[in-house]
Amino acid sequence: MTPAALDAADPLAFARERFRIPDGVIYLDGNSLGALPAAAPDRLAQAIEHEWGERLIASWNEAGWVDLPRRLGDRIAPLIGATPGSVVVADSTSVNLFKCAAGALQARRPRRVILAEASDFPTDAYVLEGLAALTGAELRLVAREDVRSALTQEVAVLVLTHVHYRSGAINDMAALSAAAQAVGALTVWDLSHSAGALAVRLDADGADYAIGCGYKYLNGGPGAPAFLYVAPRHQATFANPLSGWFGHAAPFAFQQAYAPTAGAARGQAGTPPILSMIALEQGLATFDGIDMTAARLKAMQLSQAFLEGALALGLQPACPTDPQLRGNQVTLHHPHAYAVVQALIADGVVGDFREPDIMRFGFAPLYLRHADVAEALERLSLVLVEERWRDARFQVRLPVT
Amino acid sequence: MTPAALDAADPLAFARERFRIPDGVIYLDGNSLGALPAAAPDRLAQAIEHEWGERLIASWNEAGWVDLPRRLGDRIAPLIGATPGSVVVADSTSVNLFKCAAGALQARRPRRVILAEASDFPTDAYVLEGLAALTGAELRLVAREDVRSALTQEVAVLVLTHVHYRSGAINDMAALSAAAQAVGALTVWDLSHSAGALAVRLDADGADYAIGCGYKYLNGGPGAPAFLYVAPRHQATFANPLSGWFGHAAPFAFQQAYAPTAGAARGQAGTPPILSMIALEQGLATFDGIDMTAARLKAMQLSQAFLEGALALGLQPACPTDPQLRGNQVTLHHPHAYAVVQALIADGVVGDFREPDIMRFGFAPLYLRHADVAEALERLSLVLVEERWRDARFQVRLPVT
Repeated sequence: MTPAALDAADPLAFARERFRIPDGVIYLDGNSLGALPAAAPDRLAQAIEHEWGERLIASWNEAGWVDLPRRLGDRIAPLIGATPGSVVVADSTSVNLFKCAAGALQARRPRRVILAEASDFPTDAYVLEGLAALTGAELRLVAREDVRSALTQEVAVLVLTHVHYRSGAINDMAALSAAAQAVGALTVWDLSHSAGALAVRLDADGADYAIGCGYKYLNGGPGAPAFLYVAPRHQATFANPLSGWFGHAAPFAFQQAYAPTAGAARGQAGTPPILSMIALEQGLATFDGIDMTAARLKAMQLSQAFLEGALALGLQPACPTDPQLRGNQVTLHHPHAYAVVQALIADGVVGDFREPDIMRFGFAPLYLRHADVAEALERLSLVLVEERWRDARFQVRLPVT
Repeated sequence: MTPAALDAADPLAFARERFRIPDGVIYLDGNSLGALPAAAPDRLAQAIEHEWGERLIASWNEAGWVDLPRRLGDRIAPLIGATPGSVVVADSTSVNLFKCAAGALQARRPRRVILAEASDFPTDAYVLEGLAALTGAELRLVAREDVRSALTQEVAVLVLTHVHYRSGAINDMAALSAAAQAVGALTVWDLSHSAGALAVRLDADGADYAIGCGYKYLNGGPGAPAFLYVAPRHQATFANPLSGWFGHAAPFAFQQAYAPTAGAARGQAGTPPILSMIALEQGLATFDGIDMTAARLKAMQLSQAFLEGALALGLQPACPTDPQLRGNQVTLHHPHAYAVVQALIADGVVGDFREPDIMRFGFAPLYLRHADVAEALERLSLVLVEERWRDARFQVRLPVT
């Protein structure tokens, strides 16, 4: 089938109208920052001018600000295979990792080993390092292929990324959760690159805790608040060390002692950033009526078409070539990867660079078309054939890459 | 002088135009949620539609998103008497308290006692309880009058609120910091009710760490990100346990080991909520050219006029009657405090209720006029004389009070 025919037959084609995509841009970086939901500007203007400006503190009740963390959690839950009440939106992914890993560590005392994969997104290891230094736990970072053999009776908690940020490789959540459980360890799954991208099945796959990002595939806006998941079997005992008032059973009773609220909502800490929460609510609304199995299928088609085209151009893959083993992204090696990405961006194809030599392209199924993939490959071909990346302006390294 | 004459002579009168205050409303709750800066709606619309919608990930560099935590910290620094580079904006007040108290605890090992005042804003005690449970530290909550005698050689860290959220009583930062230092303890000061309200002098008064809220007197919008301060002498050693990538010396180098950046900026954790950060930037801009000593003087005049008027109506103070000993707020007892506050709100005078019988009124010096205080007292008098608070609709308790 031609790209045009595939687009005509796409059951998710209707969703593109839910976004504003800049003219001429093929946006293959929704795995870094999701595109702007079309409804967000008006909704945010109303929140700013009416709810904050006119109604002021009354909006905590009237506009339901106080319930946003639970409400948004319940919207995320079906996207990641979670029971209602087991997801809450709060803080950042890093902070939520700290909460979940610390809670798991406390639940498994006197065990004191935190096991994680060395090559995962660095902030995860940084946060676990901080947790270990504070608590006297031991952080063991091992190579991906050594995770299973490192799962011993000493391990309190295993922290893994579901989809690897660079390679896009998918970890087998069911098998690794079972392996951890077999040695009495708890799991924390980082869903930053799988929430809103894959048909995640947290409950069914036996995850204990999970965290994830609001600003990538969930389209929540720059630095959107993150989420955390607590499996129903742990909710009554989950000890959130960041036990702020929003996780209290009666936050406005101003009691002296902490008494956690029910469900994952105890994973909250302080007052949530309301404007960013409302932006995330609009991002989540772009998933209304979307079946994640269908979305994942479309993303696999898009990313596989791109990968095959890129391999035909002579590029080397930095990702699994089987789409079943890969998240909704494609990564490719190139000795001048940074400059190639910059040249592509100048030509309207937005991907990103990852150290040391990797070009990364994400395929958000709600707003990308098959025709976009074909066009992106055309432009990639021109950048490579004409060696446009040699232009001096594409060599200038920016602070955020 | 009449209120009109005082307003005519007010050197800060120009600042009211920097806000949108709803018609007919006298807003005495800027100590809970600051009013909307007039420039915020347009600036946020630009950030949403252009920076996020059109420029997407390029805005991390182009629009300076990545520098917001430091940039906003440097705008807060002069308001609280802090050296540039010693303040950063990140996360919530609760989360920042955890970081600072944990960092102080680590610095004072093997000491393990955290000392705090029992009656302070509850989230502070809740967070310290969580930190103690995680680390094996001991939390001692004592009455306000017992803080000094509880300062022993066992104490690692003393956490105090600068201005009490209910009584408004000011703690003597210089004296208590010196008392803590004399026994080898470090201090964490919660500035939630003093940043943007008092002429705080963190460096001069010998504070070790401080935290505070962006959404009260700093006018940063609902749930605005918070700030933290690290005294210059501690910056090289401050161990932030929430050691996420934004506090790393080279966040985009994706190194495996955590290496903290210089200054208070290492107090960052994960990706900041950009829209809420930009709203806070507009809130901080309302302080441009404002001398905090002059702002504090005006707020004392406003709050004292209100207190004296309220006492003349027969109300009992729940705050110090000497304005030098009190933050920019007045609290009053009333057996039907909740209903009186609701009746006042219905009449356009917005204050808030605090358990068990307290009416709280805040006096934000940038947008309140002396005439507003006189008018608020008129309306308070009517509510009391006519016993309007007996109306059944004012008895209905809302979730957020």
